[in-house]
Amino acid sequence: MSTSKLTSISELGEFGLIDRLTADLKPKNLSTVLGVGDDAAVLKTDSGKYTLVSKDLLVEGVHFDMVYSPLKHIGYKSAVVNFSDMAAMNGVPKQMVVGMAISSKFSVEAIEEIYEGMKKACEVYGVDFVGGDTTSSLHGLFISVTVIGEVEESRITYRKGAQPNDLLCVTGDLGGAYMGLLVLEREKQGFKANPNIQPDMAGKEYILQRQLKPEPRTDVVKKLVENDIIPTSMIDISDGLASEAIHLANSSEVGVAIYEEKIPIDQNTFDTAGEFKIVPAVAALNGGEDYELLFTVKQDDFEKISNVEGVTIIGYITDASEGNRLITSGNQVIELKAQGWDGLKK
Amino acid sequence: MSTSKLTSISELGEFGLIDRLTADLKPKNLSTVLGVGDDAAVLKTDSGKYTLVSKDLLVEGVHFDMVYSPLKHIGYKSAVVNFSDMAAMNGVPKQMVVGMAISSKFSVEAIEEIYEGMKKACEVYGVDFVGGDTTSSLHGLFISVTVIGEVEESRITYRKGAQPNDLLCVTGDLGGAYMGLLVLEREKQGFKANPNIQPDMAGKEYILQRQLKPEPRTDVVKKLVENDIIPTSMIDISDGLASEAIHLANSSEVGVAIYEEKIPIDQNTFDTAGEFKIVPAVAALNGGEDYELLFTVKQDDFEKISNVEGVTIIGYITDASEGNRLITSGNQVIELKAQGWDGLKK
Repeated sequence: MSTSKLTSISELGEFGLIDRLTADLKPKNLSTVLGVGDDAAVLKTDSGKYTLVSKDLLVEGVHFDMVYSPLKHIGYKSAVVNFSDMAAMNGVPKQMVVGMAISSKFSVEAIEEIYEGMKKACEVYGVDFVGGDTTSSLHGLFISVTVIGEVEESRITYRKGAQPNDLLCVTGDLGGAYMGLLVLEREKQGFKANPNIQPDMAGKEYILQRQLKPEPRTDVVKKLVENDIIPTSMIDISDGLASEAIHLANSSEVGVAIYEEKIPIDQNTFDTAGEFKIVPAVAALNGGEDYELLFTVKQDDFEKISNVEGVTIIGYITDASEGNRLITSGNQVIELKAQGWDGLKK
Repeated sequence: MSTSKLTSISELGEFGLIDRLTADLKPKNLSTVLGVGDDAAVLKTDSGKYTLVSKDLLVEGVHFDMVYSPLKHIGYKSAVVNFSDMAAMNGVPKQMVVGMAISSKFSVEAIEEIYEGMKKACEVYGVDFVGGDTTSSLHGLFISVTVIGEVEESRITYRKGAQPNDLLCVTGDLGGAYMGLLVLEREKQGFKANPNIQPDMAGKEYILQRQLKPEPRTDVVKKLVENDIIPTSMIDISDGLASEAIHLANSSEVGVAIYEEKIPIDQNTFDTAGEFKIVPAVAALNGGEDYELLFTVKQDDFEKISNVEGVTIIGYITDASEGNRLITSGNQVIELKAQGWDGLKK
């Protein structure tokens, strides 16, 4: 973003701003009949499919920090966290509608950067950006994203549906986004103390990307089709693994058992956890924002799921009476508890 | 709302708050497969119909003022302004998803009041409330509402589509919401000056309701079906009549001519405009938030549309070369200009 000549939002006005932001949005999905420019976007769904709707509200100072989050990444992330919800229903994102409330401290160029990130996410994941709305806020930036997706009726996967003896699986690796956040917070404190200091991010690329530019696992949804697997239940990991596993278990009215040593953790996450004197599994269990998928499959699907690259079996489902348990690396059995990221809780 | 014992949001936490707010939401529409409780709501659309999506972001201090807006009305209004968008596409609202960012100054009971208003709106207009999400904000209250609707493919009505010689029609009456706002602002100033003063709202019930509890014209959508009319273009009046008429004309690449004396204005609006020394037509042209429908029909439909109660023909469509014109009560022809409500413009 050039900072040489910034345009104030008041120069364009609301309609002018929206026109500028949405001028290059061209629908690509067959189900998108009309995008921006009218009172509502217009979609058409084939029969035999379900329409999915998810919504997220991202708040400056709560969900992102303007000090260390590049604007484009804020836009990208606000889009893909909703694409992740589509994946968690075993579906794919198709359309996106965005609302932003903007305080006067933002320039038009800053808002365009955020939109650029959103457009990039839509491009990467084949989503049509079909509605944009901006309004003013007195304090801070608020981004509201609604994503519409679809899934074949026969493949929809809810949080409920896990049965005792099902295998508990997770995609990718966990805890990285949280370690990335800790590094960013550390550098922010250092920068506050001494603005001339150069941030020390060398070797942290992976965990920083996990925090700033997460990728939703729509690829796993495709692999499940290819391998003829329909999970019995699924959720995405936006809070920590512990919180999501308990969510899944409660929705399915079952218990869950997780082997600590099976939890997939990247070397970069592991090493950084060491620096911060945090047990790596704790970062995975209680950190958040990994946007991996947590799901269950029937035991009969063991071989099929073992063939899917990037999926790890970390535990199994039990009767509800057995509760939710963590089997530690030392073979102790302890109650699985959600510390989570419950922002509104003390 | 009883103020005897208020619950802080931190007592419940985010999940607890959402559970409490959404416990009584029961889907009614056949197209709603699943509402709250999973990663996304699940909808199913019949073939032969289009799905409509609209979104609005309401910001405390910008779109509503907590001093004079009852919480229930804030909830009601934030829902129905989106139902109005569905009507403006000649469709009906079916599902609603809500996100709220809440600062710690709000109690759980306050949030429940807002939800009560939203639920009431859903009940009145037959809409399923299928998703709710709350998060924290550092300052103020932000409400993001997404509404999903449907319309038969053959009946969808866009902003574009008006042709020269079409009749320009409006539902209900205009300017009332703006006059209601002026009364509320006046009383707020009076209250600030002397908190013991009793607000003087007698005789203002109609315009106050127009401002605080607008009703979307989904009834008109039904009447258009009954009278076998498909408008050639349509928009809802959230900004002033002038702004929306120009919007319609620009989208359709035509000109518009409006007769000032034909603009429908309620007696209560007319009288209050007099008190404020405002020309009533100016309140209708440049005030906003009436949420009536502005639409065009072919001249051949003149008799049919004349039979629809509550619809007024206020002008006609011309070639684009003739521009957008207002024919004043004194028979002067002046250019129609949008003062509007462009909140982001200086």
